[in-house]
Amino acid sequence: MPDKPFRPRVVIIGGGFGGLAAARALKRANVDVTLIDRTNHFTFQPLLYQVATAALAPSEITSPLRYILRRQKNTEVLMAEAREIDVVHRVVRVDDELKEIPYDYLIVAAGARHAYFGHDEWEPYAPGLKAIEDASEIRRRFLLAFELAEKSGDAREQQEYMTFVVVGGGPTGVELSGAFPFIARKALAPDFRRIDTRKTRVILIEAGPRILPTFPESLAARAARDLGDLGVEVRVNSAVTGVEPDGVWIGAEKLRARTTFWAAGNNASPLGKLLDSPRDRAGRIQVSPDLSVPGHPEIFVVGDLSILVQDGRPVPGVGPAAIQEGSFAAKNVLRELRRQPRKNFRYRNKGDLATIGRSRAIADFGWVRFAGRPAWFLWLFVHIMYLVGFRNRIVVLIEWAYAYFTYQAGVRLITDVERYKPPSADTSAATRIDEWETTLMQSKK
Amino acid sequence: MPDKPFRPRVVIIGGGFGGLAAARALKRANVDVTLIDRTNHFTFQPLLYQVATAALAPSEITSPLRYILRRQKNTEVLMAEAREIDVVHRVVRVDDELKEIPYDYLIVAAGARHAYFGHDEWEPYAPGLKAIEDASEIRRRFLLAFELAEKSGDAREQQEYMTFVVVGGGPTGVELSGAFPFIARKALAPDFRRIDTRKTRVILIEAGPRILPTFPESLAARAARDLGDLGVEVRVNSAVTGVEPDGVWIGAEKLRARTTFWAAGNNASPLGKLLDSPRDRAGRIQVSPDLSVPGHPEIFVVGDLSILVQDGRPVPGVGPAAIQEGSFAAKNVLRELRRQPRKNFRYRNKGDLATIGRSRAIADFGWVRFAGRPAWFLWLFVHIMYLVGFRNRIVVLIEWAYAYFTYQAGVRLITDVERYKPPSADTSAATRIDEWETTLMQSKK
Repeated sequence: MPDKPFRPRVVIIGGGFGGLAAARALKRANVDVTLIDRTNHFTFQPLLYQVATAALAPSEITSPLRYILRRQKNTEVLMAEAREIDVVHRVVRVDDELKEIPYDYLIVAAGARHAYFGHDEWEPYAPGLKAIEDASEIRRRFLLAFELAEKSGDAREQQEYMTFVVVGGGPTGVELSGAFPFIARKALAPDFRRIDTRKTRVILIEAGPRILPTFPESLAARAARDLGDLGVEVRVNSAVTGVEPDGVWIGAEKLRARTTFWAAGNNASPLGKLLDSPRDRAGRIQVSPDLSVPGHPEIFVVGDLSILVQDGRPVPGVGPAAIQEGSFAAKNVLRELRRQPRKNFRYRNKGDLATIGRSRAIADFGWVRFAGRPAWFLWLFVHIMYLVGFRNRIVVLIEWAYAYFTYQAGVRLITDVERYKPPSADTSAATRIDEWETTLMQSKK
Repeated sequence: MPDKPFRPRVVIIGGGFGGLAAARALKRANVDVTLIDRTNHFTFQPLLYQVATAALAPSEITSPLRYILRRQKNTEVLMAEAREIDVVHRVVRVDDELKEIPYDYLIVAAGARHAYFGHDEWEPYAPGLKAIEDASEIRRRFLLAFELAEKSGDAREQQEYMTFVVVGGGPTGVELSGAFPFIARKALAPDFRRIDTRKTRVILIEAGPRILPTFPESLAARAARDLGDLGVEVRVNSAVTGVEPDGVWIGAEKLRARTTFWAAGNNASPLGKLLDSPRDRAGRIQVSPDLSVPGHPEIFVVGDLSILVQDGRPVPGVGPAAIQEGSFAAKNVLRELRRQPRKNFRYRNKGDLATIGRSRAIADFGWVRFAGRPAWFLWLFVHIMYLVGFRNRIVVLIEWAYAYFTYQAGVRLITDVERYKPPSADTSAATRIDEWETTLMQSKK
């Protein structure tokens, strides 16, 4: 028995699936919890692509972290940016002022950002999709491309504006590219006078031999067929060697397209570097089987920022894994406080789902695999159920029903146009990049 | 009878109430219509304050102009910025490239922006509310203020963050200030641990002797009482003499508040200067009784950009007036094409409504005036009916029902935080302005 009352402080960095699961697992525990996040909201990442494709509004897939945790009285939320982790003094320092947040246990769930494999210069021309602002940016560029095509008097330029390249054949790339043709050809077609939006081309580029490499080959092949039916040109074995404002290079070939989106790779949050621990090439921290950092039993890393190999395979960087890890790390804290031994984490794969477009999806539960409309309904059901907040569920259901029956995209709002000025056409690629940068500078006046 | 077929080109600048009404009035006419707007959407301005106060999402009160006009085959929408009006050659020049859009008739409906009475330097500290981006900015500052108060360790600073000043006692100022206390005291209270959001102060400042000067005195007095009940401090006869990051000056008195919003005045769109015509102090163009510009019968100006005095009073700058004028100007074009004489515009005031907060509003129909819950239900009904788009109506109804029964604000998403960095507290006002500007520069890296 401790001779003085000890109420440990548990600090959680990151309010995504992992961090939120950790906080919730500590709900009735005799600890003080501080959840730190740069933003004020939880983002339901599996539906981010629907914001990017104008199907849902940003507020429909987000919920304020404070609101989610408002009844959990031992927990406070701090909207702040973690800048330093001082493992010696056991404090996290936040914001410019480096205000100190002391901890007894630290759970780091800072996630990942998209990565350009050493080509960060591609980012301005090929935004990725991790945060709600990214989704708004992709929506802005997608919708603006048609406005610019309508304004252009040049047929070749119009086709370039109506050509979209998605780099990366994982679930995000498949979901993004699968949604574009439908909106372009159905929802937008009656609205334009000078362009025929049914001529929209969507090209999905994958460096490996097939799309959806984490799914069984049969389901991935079905998904590729479905994408083809929807009008997506799928190109495998195609490594991107350059990204420019007006196209993407694959070796010596240039795909001419004014709009490119990036879904090809992740890097763990740079916050991982603050922990003096072994990391893999993607910056992920190698954690012990109890999810703690080797040498620092008081620090846990969960979700996309961590790497743990089980049965010869890494625990995948998906939402359900982050939830399981976050919850498990919190429970290991509680076990220790009860003077019980820690346990080792085991990932339970409850099944993989990927949606491909209207009425199509694939589902893999190991013991059963299926595709098409049943998988799509399952996908709808699961995503509505896991969406945080009753209000969001109702509103998203209505948006989906509206979109399904009217063939419309509900959220076709373009805002903050001045933040993205697409390049003009009739100059060389090199000049164009200069112009682009000049434009970027000017737009910051 | 004309000896050659003449199909006139009608160009409309501005896709607000006035421009859209003009376009719709030309639906089946034997003319070609081009509607030019800087944005891609119509904004339902009467509900902008609900986006600013986190009750509705931006996409719920906007609708793409193309989508609204998709079935009107003689009309095209051009997302572009009008830069020059060449009344000699009868062309509008748009965008950086000054691309020429020729017209036979021109209807200018470019609206107004908020104005700072020669004090544009106040704008960074007191954003106004005209476009959807303005509403997002106000929402961002309002919600961020509580996050910063929660982070602050200083009680005085916390109270300054929880004090909001709204300048201007017209309908927008009344609606904004009436919505804030409710959200702060009900929706936000359970979510914070270190601050008591029920201590939020909202101060409405009006330079004139009473709020809502366009309403009858009895209704305005009722509105002032209702605002008081809601917890808004109403100060009349108080002209603002200075706006700083941490407060507002009224003569020698400084109201300490970290967040100020501007609802005090409008200036007509600078586009009006492109027409070489007499303007009033607010930049509004004095139009002839047929709504055309004196000396230019082929150019009409409607909505907030125009000023027309009738029965000794100017036609008010409200949505219904803009709709009536836009439609009327278009019909004068059609009359002329049918070789009929033009008619003179008469504004028909169908009644004025203003909402004050949950369950309160005032209504003035001239022959009948009422306030309280009946006026509020009428306000709800009218605004749902006039909202463009079936989808928006359904979603807004659900948001309102949700907010009404749960006492919640549905859209508490903070995005693009880096665009607004509030100043730090413990320096003199002068230093603070410098810091602010430095911060603004840095945030543009």
